[in-house]
Amino acid sequence: MLPGLDEVRAAAERLAGRTHRTPVLTCSAMDAMAGASLFFKCENFQKTGAFKFRGASNAVELLEESERGVATHSSGNHGAALAAAAKARGISAHIVVPENATMVKLAAVEHYGGQVILCKPTLEARETTLERVVAETGAFFVPPFDHPHIIAGQGTAALELLEEVDGLDAVIAPVGGGGLVSGTGIAVRGLRPKTDVFAAEPEQADDAARSFLSGKIEPANSNTIADGLLTSLGPLTFQAIRETVSDVIRVSEAEIVAALRTAWERMKIVIEPSSAVPVAAVLKDKRFKGKRVGVILTGGNVDLKGLAKILAD
Amino acid sequence: MLPGLDEVRAAAERLAGRTHRTPVLTCSAMDAMAGASLFFKCENFQKTGAFKFRGASNAVELLEESERGVATHSSGNHGAALAAAAKARGISAHIVVPENATMVKLAAVEHYGGQVILCKPTLEARETTLERVVAETGAFFVPPFDHPHIIAGQGTAALELLEEVDGLDAVIAPVGGGGLVSGTGIAVRGLRPKTDVFAAEPEQADDAARSFLSGKIEPANSNTIADGLLTSLGPLTFQAIRETVSDVIRVSEAEIVAALRTAWERMKIVIEPSSAVPVAAVLKDKRFKGKRVGVILTGGNVDLKGLAKILAD
Repeated sequence: MLPGLDEVRAAAERLAGRTHRTPVLTCSAMDAMAGASLFFKCENFQKTGAFKFRGASNAVELLEESERGVATHSSGNHGAALAAAAKARGISAHIVVPENATMVKLAAVEHYGGQVILCKPTLEARETTLERVVAETGAFFVPPFDHPHIIAGQGTAALELLEEVDGLDAVIAPVGGGGLVSGTGIAVRGLRPKTDVFAAEPEQADDAARSFLSGKIEPANSNTIADGLLTSLGPLTFQAIRETVSDVIRVSEAEIVAALRTAWERMKIVIEPSSAVPVAAVLKDKRFKGKRVGVILTGGNVDLKGLAKILAD
Repeated sequence: MLPGLDEVRAAAERLAGRTHRTPVLTCSAMDAMAGASLFFKCENFQKTGAFKFRGASNAVELLEESERGVATHSSGNHGAALAAAAKARGISAHIVVPENATMVKLAAVEHYGGQVILCKPTLEARETTLERVVAETGAFFVPPFDHPHIIAGQGTAALELLEEVDGLDAVIAPVGGGGLVSGTGIAVRGLRPKTDVFAAEPEQADDAARSFLSGKIEPANSNTIADGLLTSLGPLTFQAIRETVSDVIRVSEAEIVAALRTAWERMKIVIEPSSAVPVAAVLKDKRFKGKRVGVILTGGNVDLKGLAKILAD
C-alpha cells in the first residue's frame, strides 16, 4: 500500500539527525536562463552522495528483527546507501553487484562496510544471487524503490524543501524506478495541494512517460548517460505517479549534457547526469516561465574521468 | 591605512542584498580525513563565482564621482567581479586583459558588461595600457587587493562565517596578493581574539611565506596550478598579514590536486585550484587535529577542459 503524508512525516522524524538536512541553493544565472525562480534541493550533498540514503535509512530503522541484516542488488547508489544505513544501525549488509559495475560503485559499497557479492551482469543472475544470499544469511531484502518505507523516506527531501521555501508553483524530480518522485508527489500534494509535481525523464529511457500515457507499466528502453534512471516502474511507484504527478517531461541526451555543464559551470556544484535531467526539463519547458519551481538534485556520484570526457567536448 | 573591524562591519552592511550570503558546508568524510571539524565558507557560490565580488562591490559602492566609471587590469576573477559590481551600480568598467588570458576569463568580463581592452602579456604592458585607459576615460583604478576598501570587503566572508559558526579555533584562507587573508585576519582577530588565522600558499608560489619569514616583501616565484595565487603581496596586505596571521602554510602541487579531487568527489562542489590550497593545508598540518577550523573556499571558476586533464590522471 502506498504511504501517505503521515508516513512521510513519520519518516522525517525518524531520520532527523541520521540524514543531512541538505541546503536549498538558488542561482541567478540559472533563473535568468529558465525565466523562473528555481530552488535546488541539493541531495548531492546527502550522506553517501545521493537521496537514496533517506529511503534506505527509513527502511533499515523500521526493521524489527534487524540482527538478521539486510541485502539488496544494486549497481548504483542504492547499494552504498543501504550499506551506510545498515552500518549506522550496526547490522550487516549484503550487496549483490554485477561484475561489470564500475570500481567507484564497488568502492563506495565497501567504504560503508557493505559485503559485496559479485554476479553476472544480467537481471536473472542478480535475482538468483540475491535469493541465495537471503536464503543463506536470513537477511531482509530491501528493494531499491517499490516499497512503502523507501517511498516515504525519499519523500522527506520534498518535505524539507516545502518547509524552507514558500509559495512553490511546482516541484520536479527525475524518475527512474520512481521511488523519489512517488515520495515527492505524496509529500507535495499532501501538504500543498495547489503545487504541481512533475517527473523528468531521458527521452532515451522514457518508460515512465510511456507508462503514464498508456495506463500500464511499460518496459524500460535504456540507453542514456543518466545511469540512475534506467529502471522501469514498479506497481506502487506507478500508482503514486498516476495519483500525484501532472506530467512526465522528456529531455534529450544533448539537453542533459548541457544542463550538467551549466550546473557545474554556473552553480559550482557536482551533480551526476541523472540530476541534470530535471534541470534540463525546467530550462526547456515553457510551463515553468515566471513560476517558482523546486528542483530535486538527486545525487553527485560521478566517475570524474568519465564525466571529464563528456564535459570536455 | 589598514581598515579595522568597524570598516569590515560597515562593508557587510553596505553589501547586504548585493552579495550572496554564501552557505557554510560541512562534510563528515573530510572531517574524518583531517581529524578535525571543518566548516567550509563557500565563496565558490558567490556572485561571479568568487569572493572577489565582495571587495569590488565595496570599492565601487564607496566611489563618489562614480559616473566616471572604473578600470583595472586582471587576468582572473577580479576583472569579472569589478565588471559585475560596476554593472550593479550602472557605471562602466574598463578591464585590461593580457592577450594570452583564457577565453573563459574574457567571456566572464564581457558577460558582466565589462569593456575588454587587450594588451601584451607583460606587467609593463598591463600597467601602461591601464594608465592610458584611465587617462582617456577618467575612470577610477580599482586595484585587485592592496586597497582598504577591497580588504574590508573581502573580510565580510569571514564575518559571516563567525556569525554562523561558534567556537572556531582557527580560520584559514589562501594567500595570493593577500586581500582575502588580510580582511579575514582583521575580521577574525577583531571579533574573536582567541581564534588563530592561517594563510595557505603553494610551495611553488611561496612569496608570502618567504615575506612572512624575512620581514620584507619578497618577489613572486610563480609556477603553480593555483592560478589565483600568483601575485606578490602589497604594502597594506603585508602589514595585515604580519599583524593578524599566525603562520603561512605551504602545500605541494600534488597536495593541491589531491585536495581538489577530494572536494569534488566527497563534497560534490566545484572549486578552483586556488580554493584547494587551504583544503590541502588543513588535511596536512597536524596543528588542526581535534580543532574546529573555518576554511574559506575562494572560488569555483575553472576551465572544465583544463581541469578534466588534471583530474583524469
